[in-house]
Amino acid sequence: MTARKRSSGARARGRRPRRVVPARSALAPTGVVGRPGLRVDALAKVDGSARYIDDLRFPDLLYAAVRTSDLPHAEVLRIDVTDAQQVPGVVAVATFRDVPGQNQVGCVRPDQPLLVETRARWVGDRIALIAATDPATAKAAARVVKVDAVPLPGVFDVEQALATGAPAVHTGGNLIEEFCIERGDAELALRQADVVVEHRYLAPWQEHAYLEPQGVIAVPERGSMTIYGSMQCPFYVQSAVARLLGLPLSRVRVVQTVTGGAFGGKEDYPSEPACCAALLAHKSGRPVKFVYNREQDIQWSTKRHRMVIQHRLAARRDGTLLGAEIEILVDAGAYCGLTGIVAERANTSSVGPYLVPNVRVRTRTIYTNNPFGGAFRGFGAPQVTLAHEGQLDALAERLGRDPLDLRRQNALRPYAVAAWGEKLAPPVEYLETLAAAERLSGWSALRRQVEAHNRAGGRTRLGLGVGCCMYGSCLHAGGQHLEGSGALLQVHRDGSVSAAIGLTEMGQGAATVVARVAAEVLGVAVDQVEVLPTDTALVPDSGPTVASRTTPMAGHAVANAARQLRAQLLPAATGLLRCRANQVELSGGWARGPGRKKVAFADVAAAAFQAKAHLAASGWYAPPRKQFDRATGLGQPYSAYAYATQIALCEVDLATGVARVKKFFCAHDVGRAIFPDGVCGQIEGGAVQGMGYALTERLVVRDGRILNANFTDYLIPTIEDAPEVAIALIESGDEGGDKGRGTASQAKGPFGAKGIGEPSLIPAPAAVANAVSHALGARLTELPLLPDVIMAEIARRNLDNVPFVESAAT
Amino acid sequence: MTARKRSSGARARGRRPRRVVPARSALAPTGVVGRPGLRVDALAKVDGSARYIDDLRFPDLLYAAVRTSDLPHAEVLRIDVTDAQQVPGVVAVATFRDVPGQNQVGCVRPDQPLLVETRARWVGDRIALIAATDPATAKAAARVVKVDAVPLPGVFDVEQALATGAPAVHTGGNLIEEFCIERGDAELALRQADVVVEHRYLAPWQEHAYLEPQGVIAVPERGSMTIYGSMQCPFYVQSAVARLLGLPLSRVRVVQTVTGGAFGGKEDYPSEPACCAALLAHKSGRPVKFVYNREQDIQWSTKRHRMVIQHRLAARRDGTLLGAEIEILVDAGAYCGLTGIVAERANTSSVGPYLVPNVRVRTRTIYTNNPFGGAFRGFGAPQVTLAHEGQLDALAERLGRDPLDLRRQNALRPYAVAAWGEKLAPPVEYLETLAAAERLSGWSALRRQVEAHNRAGGRTRLGLGVGCCMYGSCLHAGGQHLEGSGALLQVHRDGSVSAAIGLTEMGQGAATVVARVAAEVLGVAVDQVEVLPTDTALVPDSGPTVASRTTPMAGHAVANAARQLRAQLLPAATGLLRCRANQVELSGGWARGPGRKKVAFADVAAAAFQAKAHLAASGWYAPPRKQFDRATGLGQPYSAYAYATQIALCEVDLATGVARVKKFFCAHDVGRAIFPDGVCGQIEGGAVQGMGYALTERLVVRDGRILNANFTDYLIPTIEDAPEVAIALIESGDEGGDKGRGTASQAKGPFGAKGIGEPSLIPAPAAVANAVSHALGARLTELPLLPDVIMAEIARRNLDNVPFVESAAT
Repeated sequence: MTARKRSSGARARGRRPRRVVPARSALAPTGVVGRPGLRVDALAKVDGSARYIDDLRFPDLLYAAVRTSDLPHAEVLRIDVTDAQQVPGVVAVATFRDVPGQNQVGCVRPDQPLLVETRARWVGDRIALIAATDPATAKAAARVVKVDAVPLPGVFDVEQALATGAPAVHTGGNLIEEFCIERGDAELALRQADVVVEHRYLAPWQEHAYLEPQGVIAVPERGSMTIYGSMQCPFYVQSAVARLLGLPLSRVRVVQTVTGGAFGGKEDYPSEPACCAALLAHKSGRPVKFVYNREQDIQWSTKRHRMVIQHRLAARRDGTLLGAEIEILVDAGAYCGLTGIVAERANTSSVGPYLVPNVRVRTRTIYTNNPFGGAFRGFGAPQVTLAHEGQLDALAERLGRDPLDLRRQNALRPYAVAAWGEKLAPPVEYLETLAAAERLSGWSALRRQVEAHNRAGGRTRLGLGVGCCMYGSCLHAGGQHLEGSGALLQVHRDGSVSAAIGLTEMGQGAATVVARVAAEVLGVAVDQVEVLPTDTALVPDSGPTVASRTTPMAGHAVANAARQLRAQLLPAATGLLRCRANQVELSGGWARGPGRKKVAFADVAAAAFQAKAHLAASGWYAPPRKQFDRATGLGQPYSAYAYATQIALCEVDLATGVARVKKFFCAHDVGRAIFPDGVCGQIEGGAVQGMGYALTERLVVRDGRILNANFTDYLIPTIEDAPEVAIALIESGDEGGDKGRGTASQAKGPFGAKGIGEPSLIPAPAAVANAVSHALGARLTELPLLPDVIMAEIARRNLDNVPFVESAAT
Repeated sequence: MTARKRSSGARARGRRPRRVVPARSALAPTGVVGRPGLRVDALAKVDGSARYIDDLRFPDLLYAAVRTSDLPHAEVLRIDVTDAQQVPGVVAVATFRDVPGQNQVGCVRPDQPLLVETRARWVGDRIALIAATDPATAKAAARVVKVDAVPLPGVFDVEQALATGAPAVHTGGNLIEEFCIERGDAELALRQADVVVEHRYLAPWQEHAYLEPQGVIAVPERGSMTIYGSMQCPFYVQSAVARLLGLPLSRVRVVQTVTGGAFGGKEDYPSEPACCAALLAHKSGRPVKFVYNREQDIQWSTKRHRMVIQHRLAARRDGTLLGAEIEILVDAGAYCGLTGIVAERANTSSVGPYLVPNVRVRTRTIYTNNPFGGAFRGFGAPQVTLAHEGQLDALAERLGRDPLDLRRQNALRPYAVAAWGEKLAPPVEYLETLAAAERLSGWSALRRQVEAHNRAGGRTRLGLGVGCCMYGSCLHAGGQHLEGSGALLQVHRDGSVSAAIGLTEMGQGAATVVARVAAEVLGVAVDQVEVLPTDTALVPDSGPTVASRTTPMAGHAVANAARQLRAQLLPAATGLLRCRANQVELSGGWARGPGRKKVAFADVAAAAFQAKAHLAASGWYAPPRKQFDRATGLGQPYSAYAYATQIALCEVDLATGVARVKKFFCAHDVGRAIFPDGVCGQIEGGAVQGMGYALTERLVVRDGRILNANFTDYLIPTIEDAPEVAIALIESGDEGGDKGRGTASQAKGPFGAKGIGEPSLIPAPAAVANAVSHALGARLTELPLLPDVIMAEIARRNLDNVPFVESAAT
């Protein structure tokens, strides 16, 4: 096991070159895995040649608009589209009556009509769809759809939604489902503990704020439909459109276009605009484009789930954790969507990477008339991490302990039993991330500096906060029926290689990882591998591109296909090199035999083609089945775990209440960095997105409507807000687990890689909140920590007795 | 072995319903193979929803035009495109200087520049390409390209081209290459024979006359190119465009659009318009469409090769064939193209399905400044069949023998040795086709009627002619490096199936065969299988869609993929049916277990999906390698053989010289008819196309230019010209060969199927020519038998002493 260190300044102007501390890697060097290099899609994105969905046009293209509900909760009596149909330029108008299949877009449960029939449940609910020859006409026609509706009382708070007599969003009440962990006797542990720390955390909604808004184009053909669009999960879109139109899956083809960011916001949601466009395309017989503007995108698309977390943590005086009792309320919004899946991960992750013998967790998902909760990088984990890491810091404070030290004391180690009852197979890299973060930040010295600064008084306070996580890699056992992944590889007779996967490149670097894995196994250069756009016709249903599963899952599938091709090429190589198969090495674009004999990979490909070898392979990977008991929350929820420790140094301006992150330190267990530059990019991006969640991103929601659906009022961090992010990568390579000691072996990715997309964000909000809390000497439990919150806390704690200092210059 | 009989009237108006004589099949009944049914693409073609290349548009689409040589042979001194570039609306002009890769489109040999550098060799040679915002502007700009050229003497006849001092089309002379068969001692056989029949046959050019002209659209992206178009061979186009643009194959994607007929004319040729469009798209950065009108199509595209065949056939008095000496001259036109491959098949096929112990064949391919010879249904075989079947009839006449009887006497039988030295594995179905055609036509009675009619005198004469062939299925050994074929199948979790092949549907019914093979192996209904457009990204290089190889090759690849999927579905089926794998039968959309237990295929697919089975498969098939010695023309040239006998009843009007086919009888060995309606459609179409070649289709060529490049002056048969075609199918099923007796086993298609595309045409011109010869009592050896030819023969033989009968009505 070894660590690579990096430090990067993330400011756009005057950006310092990254200081790359050479990896002290004990891992065997390989052809391309682990080496520096460009993203394979970098140039097309930089020079503008990448074609996003809004760059595509089709002949006779129509533009879609939607008439949504004006009311967050209403009985719809009558929908009259006569006037809309008569607007010149309108080609098709659709209501629920026009759906040939099922009027249903519920991702997991069939609780969400695509088009309102009799009940509107939030302001994003669609009543009618318009297709017109230009966008303005479509919007104008949408405005003249007449809707007779009777307002119903709404419910906008999860606790109120559970109260007796609350307005019911759906018949059957507002409680959707419950998840739990029941292990040991948490109640007894809390009673017998020396210390119990209890706080109520409020993790708010977060907007994904991808650069490219939602967009699709539906192209109809006789009895079939092709969807092009910006998305994470083409197979979800395929299923949704097939169900809506009543078509077999073989007649719906989905092609992902270059996707400008997603962060979970293009997992479940794109099925909705895709179904709208598909229905209009079906009705009009013409291609239909539906691309959102920013306001529509923020107003209608899903958000990170708002969660209320009541967390009680029990410990001995010496810091040993004894038990935890956790209540989590998850605001689904008007429909279930992926809420159950998010809640299941939040539930399982709610204790963190700590040894807690007695655990009771109850997680409830709840309907409201609020914005719609959906997938978001971290998938419920950032919210519960805010809580468990807040609790650890609170406990450290209560016991007068160093927060890192308290975590080290209670850390999960190899063969320890996690909260969900699983004995953990080695390696368990949590302690390595703690140690690396400690070193990277110079923790003790930094903490002393912070304390000295704060003792000195003045306008600013500094704070140091830690956030840690144990991320269950890939899908939870509850979703493992989706946990397979395919790839399609071809070796052409000129030695070039085409690769397709069923997961998607959405900005995270998947295409580069795919090209590197294929290149590594086939022993060719990365630029010999062309990665095709993801297309449901090329690869079988590979599940969703989520849960940091692309590198492990698609990576394994690509490696599997590449190994098949390697075997299919070997006879040609042995023929050319006149040696045995086990003497052939493929690397660096050459096939090498005994002695110094070598022949170009392209010549091997040409010879194999001549010999009619099968030069395509369908690759597949599915991890071992996991056993998990949902009734108790116990079992093996994940195939592998990735650990992280992040440390934030924050500064709070007591005069303005503005908190900012000055420095950020990340130590991540990544198994093996196939594309280290990409891994570091993911970590920087995830950390900064987590900082935004902690400090500035607040959706203002009134009666279910978002009042700040723009980037002037909803504040995401810009490059000016991003601190220097220092990174240490922990690479344990492809060491497997240890079956001999009663643990399940870890199923990591190819070359031992673990996903990094989500662990990069998960601990960040907690680290920042802990740092700000440390700065103010107060436990801040509600995000975001905008100046109003901080000023209130400053006032409450009477910290604002600082002289007013006029700013010298703007 | 068994025969199905069909009879069909092919007239459009008052078309009689087909009389289908139920098959007396000894073959095991199957789910879908052999059953009646619709083509899977029938409805889209009938209702107009099928989208051909000219139906496609792209944003910013440009239109291509080409400036060709005005002279059939010239030295080009200077090309000035300045004026063309200044025509408003012109976006790009390209000459050979703009080619980033190799300026080369030679299909087999690199003898054909895409754009003339210094020498124009025929009137189709391209000098400059234009892309403009509309087709008229592009054409206008093409006209103002200035070309300084010095005319060179041309050569327009193969015999003249071989003469000393003939103008050389290429440096190195006009003889391209030679093929031969040398077996036994043909010279001695001819010397010692009782009878030698010698004739010189002239088989002319033929225009493919597909309904949809050539057309492509090239769509450029950063560093890559996608070609959409009407074509047979996407992998040829991929190779050609990659070579021209200097791109790896992985960066050129080719997608076949719905193709309205091809007949070989879209094998090699589409690479030329594709390269033109690709070069202009590369230069302009915009999509470029290049769709020919009919005149351009006829003027520029390839033709059936004009061949001169000198044929000497030696026999004993009792009719036993002793030897043959055959000289074949093949007019390539200005470039080699596929001429060598066509000549190789003509060479091998030149003796026909007869036992001829002593054979000398010499086939020479020759450059001229004439139109370009290319692939055409039959690939050289119809031309040589005209000769060998003419010779058989001439011999029968000389010996006073019944033509069918003489053929039966000399027929190749199982374990006989063919002209190329191969001992034939059973079954050898030639005699069965002779017998079936004899029965179908009522040969003896019909012959008596014909003779009675002719003895009666009058304005018309009747004639009865036979044509037979032995068709080498799939590619000749000389092209076997292309003889592999791929498929990609997916089973979706709703039980629907997607199938893609590397060969193409061009009207011949490939998609229906693919759907049926997949459905048969998976035990589902044909309409559960969706066949995707052929796309080089889906399937590896599968060689060309030619040589009647789609059903055997793609069929095997699909069956291979389907069997993989079947295996991958079985665990789910055994789980649901609680039985062993060998107890499961998949058929009719069900998985059936012991007793009466059954479960829907869709449920098996859903369960397999849940269990994360790999539900895609890359299928592959390559036939066993063949040994063939090109120097002697001996060996095993083909994987399998298909036999056919066709009989024509013709009527000649002595007053007008018009010959027409009154009745046509076809008996074809098809191995097994996977889609019998499709097989019969192919046979009807092939027979009628062969009749056109025999009777009416004459390209008028002067100085290399076609003077009748339209369908007013180039006469293809219409439905009014098509006679009743009666069909008998010989099905020997999937019986293999017999390795124990020194023969190579036949490699037939799935379920024993053999291709039918070409055998349907090959014997038809010979049968018609023989029938007309029979009617006139003269050996007619030059096609087409238009009234001028027939009137000359009538005059020569003084047959026109019939009273002039005024037509009663027009």
